[in-house]
Amino acid sequence: MLAPMSTVHDARPHGLAALPSVMRLIELALDEDLGRGDVTTQATVRAGAVRASTAEMVARAPLTVFGLDIAAAVFHRVDPSIAITRRATDGDRVGKGAVLLTVHGSSASLLEAERTALNFVQRLSGVATMSTRFAEAVAGTSARVVDTRKTTPGFRVLEKAAVLAGGCGNHRFDLGSGVLIKDNHVIACGGVTAAVERARTHAPHPLRIEVEVDSIAQLREALAAKAEIVLLDNMTPEEVTEAAAIAHAAGARVEVSGGITLATVRAYALAGADLISAGALTHSAPSVDIALDFAEASA
Amino acid sequence: MLAPMSTVHDARPHGLAALPSVMRLIELALDEDLGRGDVTTQATVRAGAVRASTAEMVARAPLTVFGLDIAAAVFHRVDPSIAITRRATDGDRVGKGAVLLTVHGSSASLLEAERTALNFVQRLSGVATMSTRFAEAVAGTSARVVDTRKTTPGFRVLEKAAVLAGGCGNHRFDLGSGVLIKDNHVIACGGVTAAVERARTHAPHPLRIEVEVDSIAQLREALAAKAEIVLLDNMTPEEVTEAAAIAHAAGARVEVSGGITLATVRAYALAGADLISAGALTHSAPSVDIALDFAEASA
Amino acid sequence: MLAPMSTVHDARPHGLAALPSVMRLIELALDEDLGRGDVTTQATVRAGAVRASTAEMVARAPLTVFGLDIAAAVFHRVDPSIAITRRATDGDRVGKGAVLLTVHGSSASLLEAERTALNFVQRLSGVATMSTRFAEAVAGTSARVVDTRKTTPGFRVLEKAAVLAGGCGNHRFDLGSGVLIKDNHVIACGGVTAAVERARTHAPHPLRIEVEVDSIAQLREALAAKAEIVLLDNMTPEEVTEAAAIAHAAGARVEVSGGITLATVRAYALAGADLISAGALTHSAPSVDIALDFAEASA
Amino acid sequence: MLAPMSTVHDARPHGLAALPSVMRLIELALDEDLGRGDVTTQATVRAGAVRASTAEMVARAPLTVFGLDIAAAVFHRVDPSIAITRRATDGDRVGKGAVLLTVHGSSASLLEAERTALNFVQRLSGVATMSTRFAEAVAGTSARVVDTRKTTPGFRVLEKAAVLAGGCGNHRFDLGSGVLIKDNHVIACGGVTAAVERARTHAPHPLRIEVEVDSIAQLREALAAKAEIVLLDNMTPEEVTEAAAIAHAAGARVEVSGGITLATVRAYALAGADLISAGALTHSAPSVDIALDFAEASA
Amino acid sequence: MLAPMSTVHDARPHGLAALPSVMRLIELALDEDLGRGDVTTQATVRAGAVRASTAEMVARAPLTVFGLDIAAAVFHRVDPSIAITRRATDGDRVGKGAVLLTVHGSSASLLEAERTALNFVQRLSGVATMSTRFAEAVAGTSARVVDTRKTTPGFRVLEKAAVLAGGCGNHRFDLGSGVLIKDNHVIACGGVTAAVERARTHAPHPLRIEVEVDSIAQLREALAAKAEIVLLDNMTPEEVTEAAAIAHAAGARVEVSGGITLATVRAYALAGADLISAGALTHSAPSVDIALDFAEASA
Amino acid sequence: MLAPMSTVHDARPHGLAALPSVMRLIELALDEDLGRGDVTTQATVRAGAVRASTAEMVARAPLTVFGLDIAAAVFHRVDPSIAITRRATDGDRVGKGAVLLTVHGSSASLLEAERTALNFVQRLSGVATMSTRFAEAVAGTSARVVDTRKTTPGFRVLEKAAVLAGGCGNHRFDLGSGVLIKDNHVIACGGVTAAVERARTHAPHPLRIEVEVDSIAQLREALAAKAEIVLLDNMTPEEVTEAAAIAHAAGARVEVSGGITLATVRAYALAGADLISAGALTHSAPSVDIALDFAEASA
Repeated sequence: MLAPMSTVHDARPHGLAALPSVMRLIELALDEDLGRGDVTTQATVRAGAVRASTAEMVARAPLTVFGLDIAAAVFHRVDPSIAITRRATDGDRVGKGAVLLTVHGSSASLLEAERTALNFVQRLSGVATMSTRFAEAVAGTSARVVDTRKTTPGFRVLEKAAVLAGGCGNHRFDLGSGVLIKDNHVIACGGVTAAVERARTHAPHPLRIEVEVDSIAQLREALAAKAEIVLLDNMTPEEVTEAAAIAHAAGARVEVSGGITLATVRAYALAGADLISAGALTHSAPSVDIALDFAEASA
Repeated sequence: MLAPMSTVHDARPHGLAALPSVMRLIELALDEDLGRGDVTTQATVRAGAVRASTAEMVARAPLTVFGLDIAAAVFHRVDPSIAITRRATDGDRVGKGAVLLTVHGSSASLLEAERTALNFVQRLSGVATMSTRFAEAVAGTSARVVDTRKTTPGFRVLEKAAVLAGGCGNHRFDLGSGVLIKDNHVIACGGVTAAVERARTHAPHPLRIEVEVDSIAQLREALAAKAEIVLLDNMTPEEVTEAAAIAHAAGARVEVSGGITLATVRAYALAGADLISAGALTHSAPSVDIALDFAEASA
Repeated sequence: MLAPMSTVHDARPHGLAALPSVMRLIELALDEDLGRGDVTTQATVRAGAVRASTAEMVARAPLTVFGLDIAAAVFHRVDPSIAITRRATDGDRVGKGAVLLTVHGSSASLLEAERTALNFVQRLSGVATMSTRFAEAVAGTSARVVDTRKTTPGFRVLEKAAVLAGGCGNHRFDLGSGVLIKDNHVIACGGVTAAVERARTHAPHPLRIEVEVDSIAQLREALAAKAEIVLLDNMTPEEVTEAAAIAHAAGARVEVSGGITLATVRAYALAGADLISAGALTHSAPSVDIALDFAEASA
Repeated sequence: MLAPMSTVHDARPHGLAALPSVMRLIELALDEDLGRGDVTTQATVRAGAVRASTAEMVARAPLTVFGLDIAAAVFHRVDPSIAITRRATDGDRVGKGAVLLTVHGSSASLLEAERTALNFVQRLSGVATMSTRFAEAVAGTSARVVDTRKTTPGFRVLEKAAVLAGGCGNHRFDLGSGVLIKDNHVIACGGVTAAVERARTHAPHPLRIEVEVDSIAQLREALAAKAEIVLLDNMTPEEVTEAAAIAHAAGARVEVSGGITLATVRAYALAGADLISAGALTHSAPSVDIALDFAEASA
Repeated sequence: MLAPMSTVHDARPHGLAALPSVMRLIELALDEDLGRGDVTTQATVRAGAVRASTAEMVARAPLTVFGLDIAAAVFHRVDPSIAITRRATDGDRVGKGAVLLTVHGSSASLLEAERTALNFVQRLSGVATMSTRFAEAVAGTSARVVDTRKTTPGFRVLEKAAVLAGGCGNHRFDLGSGVLIKDNHVIACGGVTAAVERARTHAPHPLRIEVEVDSIAQLREALAAKAEIVLLDNMTPEEVTEAAAIAHAAGARVEVSGGITLATVRAYALAGADLISAGALTHSAPSVDIALDFAEASA
Repeated sequence: MLAPMSTVHDARPHGLAALPSVMRLIELALDEDLGRGDVTTQATVRAGAVRASTAEMVARAPLTVFGLDIAAAVFHRVDPSIAITRRATDGDRVGKGAVLLTVHGSSASLLEAERTALNFVQRLSGVATMSTRFAEAVAGTSARVVDTRKTTPGFRVLEKAAVLAGGCGNHRFDLGSGVLIKDNHVIACGGVTAAVERARTHAPHPLRIEVEVDSIAQLREALAAKAEIVLLDNMTPEEVTEAAAIAHAAGARVEVSGGITLATVRAYALAGADLISAGALTHSAPSVDIALDFAEASA
């Protein structure tokens, strides 16, 4: 039996689900699963006998929820007459058995939308859950774990929102929303100093200047050129300790990156990193187990 | 130094990369990463001084390769003047350090396409590599591990091809390319027998009739109704042994599913399953480590 | 005067009309007819004086109805304030003069949507009506007439649904939802036996193996290789009688194809074919005559 | 054996095939047929052994050709390495057995594109062929048969070009490229005179004013208001003779419409119609029989 | 404080805003501004504390309004729960301070949609306002100022509607909705007479024949060939006076074009031009100043 | 006669022209102008007689060039066989009569692409030219004029690139690539200090914190909260002088905005503004005069 429901969700897409790129992704997903119809339901459940069902989306393991708006948009897109009730909020940390969403409507419509809706929520909640684990790993330090551009193609805006919901932060969204000078840029400019100066002159002023360095010498050059953030790539925590002290003394912020895992992240946080970027938040988060349980169907 | 190259790849999209849905996904991916330009390269590498680079896509760990055509399509889409040379073939199992692809062209173009190309190859090779591990786990048995519809939304045609390349098989592509009668369909029809008969009469004839059963009694009913494949969900290997013997005696094929892992899959294979469907092939395969290494840039 | 209306239709697209590919087709259709506005209405009916009209979609000849959901989606897409009332159901066989749909709303909106809505319904009802004629031609036999892939480009999902509604069956939807081994595949594999075996090993297991044969010798080879369906192309009814007996004795189903017409289809059915595929269901069904009659307009 | 080929076609889409709306239609068509791959070819023709084939597109009956550019665009879209040779030109009237196009390339690519390419050419050549029959039916008279807006949704620009190629003419493309005042517009304006005057004042000046009339009285009113074209709907040839004489005396052109068939069209032409619009050119033209014949495949 | 509101607008897109091409343009616009979210609002206004606001769209200068439906569609697209109230109608000439539209809803949603909505209305009202100035400049003459195809790419249907709303007229919409024979066509046909005759024979009959002439000799040739409209390009008002007299005597209409400005347009009108086409209506109309003023926000 | 040409342009879209959003805009533009074909050329220039032409894109006034890649992409999209030769580079300041681009190919194809190509180049060069005038107005000062988000919907990436080419700088691209705290955000947070602190904690670290202030008191509060950039809106140059001194003393940068014109911009630059944002760069730049001149056509 269903617990009492507070409010029926306005299922018309809004927020993230209303972004043009997200709508296009939902279209792609529905097209690939439902594009040729559902031959089983068509053949076994006759058209005349419309049946209504209620189903609950349930967490099968502890997790951080993300993607309920997307799931709601999927159900609404398949059949706007489905009633959707929110039982949890994106970002909630829930236990096994928690009910996240209730849907009520045509049985056939629910069956058609089920897999696509779950595929979104399982994956995005997987990212949120992984982010929560990373955030907990650095709790009490001054470091913030942030994501990277190593996201699932087409899912960046969703996965970055899932990272935030899970408790970590966002690095630059794309190549246009952050200045990050890497070795190839330095080579092209003829040195760190020249690269930083060019960036300060030519890049949009809302963007800070961040430079990747791989030695103390390069770090000092970057700081002398007034880089605002230094990225220490593939250094040990010990090396980070030394570099961070130098950078902080110059007023710069320190980001570390390079194969950071749940096992190593706290050491980097304690070494003085302000920001720790981890591709693992998005590129290696397994889906979490969430199911759609149908209540007894009624005619 | 580069090994001798055999042939320059015709980079114009074809095969999987030319499918409309894949092209739309590539568009989404490039739009999200490059849609506002690359402010760092724009600011530091001046427009006048066009530089050319050569870069190699390199495996950083042993893996099964998949997605090189998609990577090639990404580079070609960003800049059709990039020369692309194949160094491996989708499905190859390669060791750490293997070179998969070489690209040569404008440094700026390569930098702009790099992350999107890698994001595709790392994820799809992750699926292929996981599939290889599952295929190896059942080697020598008569069972075949197959995928599910638990794929990344928008990626189904790519992930299913990666599964094949890795050595496993494909289950139905979507709701229109397989008849799989589940409990909700049975309830709607008033029993297994009625459901199977309706499916035989109404579903497209190229499709076999598969029925999910969760007891020996239901299994016998399905076989009596001439189901061609029976799906045993969430049974133990012992239960599968008994059920498979009954099904095989009736000439039906046996599929098992439900939380199959690398640790448990062989037991199910030995228990007599013909097919073992595992969502883990696609929903929980971590990205594999692949990098784009730039050779010394030339003017 | 209008007959009493039972229920106002929920005009928000759902079912077939909500499929992404169908929505794209409706967009294409509206864009081509209304994309530059309606200069006549704009010039003659002044903007200030909004007029409302009621109009009925009426069959001008006996026909099998199909496409009312698509018509409703067209009206709704042009102006969501149009009220739409269903007066018939897809699949109904109706006589001349039957009212299929009633629309009420802004006169200008109705005029703008009229032609596109009718073009869909006339064409799809044409396919449904042709299917009804074929279904009636084989009534009382054990054969089922099925469609082919010879559909209007972009209309397959709609035309296949119209075929079902008309009383015939569906063959494979596309190249991914059925195994049909033709002569070119046989040549590439080096023989029927090898081709069937490869298909059994490599194709997705939900799909039966169907082989095209053009001689009794090839038929026997296909049956020996355990083909589940044999396709007899361009045989006479007499040849089919002989071949069907052989195939049925081996437990295989028999499909015939090749220029089947309303005049010849019953002979093939009586010759023992289980399935008769006819491109004519879709590629040569003329539009049926359906009109939108405006009732007296009111201010 | 193939006849000598003159020139290899530049298969990159151009002309009609390059129109955005046509490209979108081709995408829809390929997506629906190839979107999930070709399981038969994948399973039987192994990836390693690439085979090349040559195939000819051949008329199986006398017909007027149209759509070869679209077919070429389909082959090119599936695989840009396919070589395409034109053997006929859109608008050609050819006999049974005529070769229209030759394609050479990967066997698998040709098989994948075959059905979609043929579906376009068969349908469009059907329209062109029907147009040729109508054009021949009025040969020697001063009447011109023209199309209507009763086209296949999404195909208007293609079908109207096929009509031209077949020898008939085009009516207005859409609601924005012609002023055609019908009874509803007249009612809204309070009479024919007011409607024509409003149209003359407000419609874009490149457009002539055409008015539908259904009586001699209305005809005289339209002519008095200086309508440039009068549309006589559902009149008999005898009625047209009288009306045309009146209209011509006033310097107006005469169009007739309403269920015109091949059997009746000449009588209307002889009755003095300048233009005869026939929906049958597009809404009821059956596909013509065109096949793709593969030559002996080579390794 | 807000003035009393009459009616709440049905914000679901209809009319111009529902055209597929306009919807695509709105998608492009929202994608470019909101595609990565609003980091400021996200960071400062916490998700939990949902705030509602009311805001008024206000004219900051006298102007002719156009684009309110598009603005409404933008707000609705971002968040369908925003309530939208019309306070003015497209085409209204309003003074500084006039309220055009009121929106009420989530503060965050309003902030996200604000810039895109304003960008549309400011630009389109700019075109309408410029059109009003041109219309006023020829008031009392028999000339009508019309637009050209020199519109903002992607905005033609909107800008042409703004021109109408402002008080001018529309020339042909595109290359398919008007016959305009220019010098290149004349050269290709071997003379004006041949060109006009071909056009009369081959072009769709709803279109008048217009010919560009640049000398009195050419004008006489065009009139002799029964051109219905003559376009005098880059002539002085004096030259127009002479040419118009000749053309009018032959029953043809006269259009002038070529660098027409507000300063020169009346002289051409007085010289006898029936139509004066001015690219400046669309290609050089500056945006007008319109703002969105937020009332005191409430919790 | 044409001047010698250096290199034939690789017309396949790359760079800005290859961005998905730009390609979609080009599709929209071609669809609206060419979507129904070119009836004049079709009717007058017969299909059989293919003619080739050469045409030059010529500046009719002094201007800063921008958009040649887009024009090239338009010609290539209409007909890939058109040869395109660059005669100038985006950002060039050229005099009247300068040749920017040469195209050679089918006369019909050139005529079809002409207007769309010109519409892009005229508008974008208009923005670049206006930017050059603003850049010249502040020459010799330490201020940089930057654009705003008041761009043509759908054109932002193009117009921002035109601004750069003209000599000004770019402000944030969109709501996701800059933190700009305005009064509504301050109200929602309960004060400037709280707003800045929240932004520092929650916004992506690559982004500087900018705050809009409208009084000296608010300025001091923002600086105390360590805002990195202060935006002075609608202040006089005198007010800016005072505020800038205070901000610079605190190490912050100063941006001014609010109705900046060519007449007033230098006063603000001399008052100490580091950045001056001017919507006029994009929202009110008139198109510049550029034409496509056809050389004598050859058969």
